[in-house]
Amino acid sequence: MEYINEILSNLKKNNKYRGEFKKLQSPQKEKVVIDGREIILLGSNNYLGLCDHKEVKKASMEAIEKYGVGAGGSRLTTGSYTLHSMLEEKIKDIKGTQKALVFNTGYMANLGIIQALCNKDWVIFCDKYNHASILDGCLLSGAKFLRYRHCDMDDLSYKLENFKGKCNLIVTDGVFSMDGDIAPLDKIVEISKKHNAVIMVDDAHGFGVLGKDGAGTASYFGVNSEIHIHMGTLSKAVGSIGGYAASEEYFIEYFKNFSRSFIFSTALPPSSVAASIKALDIIKNEPLRRQRLLENSHRFKMELKNLGFKIPDTVTPIIPVIVGDEEKTLEFSRQLLYDRIYIPAIRPPTVPKGSSRLRISITAAHAWEDLEYVIERLKTTGRKLGLI
Amino acid sequence: MEYINEILSNLKKNNKYRGEFKKLQSPQKEKVVIDGREIILLGSNNYLGLCDHKEVKKASMEAIEKYGVGAGGSRLTTGSYTLHSMLEEKIKDIKGTQKALVFNTGYMANLGIIQALCNKDWVIFCDKYNHASILDGCLLSGAKFLRYRHCDMDDLSYKLENFKGKCNLIVTDGVFSMDGDIAPLDKIVEISKKHNAVIMVDDAHGFGVLGKDGAGTASYFGVNSEIHIHMGTLSKAVGSIGGYAASEEYFIEYFKNFSRSFIFSTALPPSSVAASIKALDIIKNEPLRRQRLLENSHRFKMELKNLGFKIPDTVTPIIPVIVGDEEKTLEFSRQLLYDRIYIPAIRPPTVPKGSSRLRISITAAHAWEDLEYVIERLKTTGRKLGLI
Repeated sequence: MEYINEILSNLKKNNKYRGEFKKLQSPQKEKVVIDGREIILLGSNNYLGLCDHKEVKKASMEAIEKYGVGAGGSRLTTGSYTLHSMLEEKIKDIKGTQKALVFNTGYMANLGIIQALCNKDWVIFCDKYNHASILDGCLLSGAKFLRYRHCDMDDLSYKLENFKGKCNLIVTDGVFSMDGDIAPLDKIVEISKKHNAVIMVDDAHGFGVLGKDGAGTASYFGVNSEIHIHMGTLSKAVGSIGGYAASEEYFIEYFKNFSRSFIFSTALPPSSVAASIKALDIIKNEPLRRQRLLENSHRFKMELKNLGFKIPDTVTPIIPVIVGDEEKTLEFSRQLLYDRIYIPAIRPPTVPKGSSRLRISITAAHAWEDLEYVIERLKTTGRKLGLI
Repeated sequence: MEYINEILSNLKKNNKYRGEFKKLQSPQKEKVVIDGREIILLGSNNYLGLCDHKEVKKASMEAIEKYGVGAGGSRLTTGSYTLHSMLEEKIKDIKGTQKALVFNTGYMANLGIIQALCNKDWVIFCDKYNHASILDGCLLSGAKFLRYRHCDMDDLSYKLENFKGKCNLIVTDGVFSMDGDIAPLDKIVEISKKHNAVIMVDDAHGFGVLGKDGAGTASYFGVNSEIHIHMGTLSKAVGSIGGYAASEEYFIEYFKNFSRSFIFSTALPPSSVAASIKALDIIKNEPLRRQRLLENSHRFKMELKNLGFKIPDTVTPIIPVIVGDEEKTLEFSRQLLYDRIYIPAIRPPTVPKGSSRLRISITAAHAWEDLEYVIERLKTTGRKLGLI
């Protein structure tokens, strides 16, 4: 296994090695403690600040008190609780579908859905920037899959016209996690209708953030009922852990019977399920939280643009500050950390070569005065590094 | 999508449809409440009764109080807590390895390990009864894989001699989940040495149950240090949720950098991590719990054998009562449920045709008087169905 050591050495040489992770000594919130220092966190998916919400924590602790810490078995054997069904009811109500099914993680949801649905009779049309778990699902399914240029509807149409198969699936992220832009779902729906293709949307970063009651990107575009399979996560705006499929009854029943990642895994613990249930109530009942998130994000983006940073036009709380050079991006992130600000540096292969970036994510919980401090430090350091 | 409805109808026709799951209204323990009735549960993986242990629950609730309900990001970005590292330290200590890495589920651990390690230069030699997640990992990896006959060392040797590649991996369950038998790891180690193959053991059902301090099946055989990659779960004897890899440092560092299921998923919530940490302490400090589990299982098995049931010789708490016929197996399970006993019926494709079975699993928490009642009902119903 000498070659593994060689690969690791090469990673180190090329500054791509992931060694020690930054370890939080505090809850996931707008300010965290790392190495004993209080740091403003601008890289979390905890968009609505629910990871540390008092009521959510209470619901989760009560579930432990009442049901224990683990589910003890797969949903199919001894691991189903009434709580799991309650969560599935809530999700289907928000998504406006007939049914929903909870998976242990978003990764497992994408794997389970695509592997169950598709086989060698299928062709899958995938946005090039889709999440890694979609790709792994495609690989597992045995289907043919083609990647179309990011959000490029001409390329999608071209590929469908020329390469479509007996059954066809178009799958796209709703919100793209590294760019913060959104898929043009209205146009994708049109194209899918023309070609009689199934549409699946991975709305990990849109669920709880965009659309009516936070229902997600499809709701934002007013095409909720036109999406065949809604996939999403419970670990981002919802603040807990898990993934889901929401769809018509026959699809969900099919996944229950054939999704291997669903069948062959111990169910989510009651504590995580109860946290998600409570968080979904809060998302629905407190629209101000979403409003504040989008206002914070918009205002922050405008300020950075005015400073001359390259910021794409987006409606989400994900704000990529494109730096380009890998080493410079790392240096930017390091200097900010020195100033008690943590913004992860994202580099290839996670993003295309030459597009290394700071990936900022804003939350509803950030105070504007803290964001002002961040803007000030981004300005100073950005100038020092010759970016603005 | 008419064909999906057809597939579902066929499942229903053939009595293979998984419709409504049995839903627990109580903690996962030796007796549970389903549909308002108290039922003796004999199908759980909660072998040591830790899902509902007071101290484990307390540790889990304290973690929520202190750290919130969710990790908010991947381990690589904002989702690593000092708690995750503490858990990894505990696991590596129990397994006697240099390092350990926690995944969100056992399914994700198997996928992440095999997909990262193997590629088209590898040949993987897989026990035919290995867990589904190992198979999915093999598929994802792009390696060639061969399945050898269950625990058949001649077949494994033959296949290695004739089909080995540039790099070779032997992967086996430690304890086989549907049969309760264990892999002959001593012999597999010998064979692997001869062929210079890497060995990986999935000890989901052995960890916490067999070996010194519950270290697992490899420890039971005294070959702990000869296994290159130990994989296991935190959702069975440990009572929580999660999976792990334990190995030499360079393997673990490699997985941290290349396991996609590790990289592209929000980390486990603090509550689940804290529950596992406390449970591992209890497993180590209370050997009586393991002893009681194995005694309960042994005694129960002997009684069933004496009654004339077909029970394989095993040392684990998993006891398959082989019925054969699918319909009869379902009927057996149904009649027991009427008598307030829940033992899942396991049928093809989970087990080979003609070997449908009741899969009993005993826990340390079962009182002998309850097990006596179960034996009595198994006798009566088994006779009625002509099995003994």
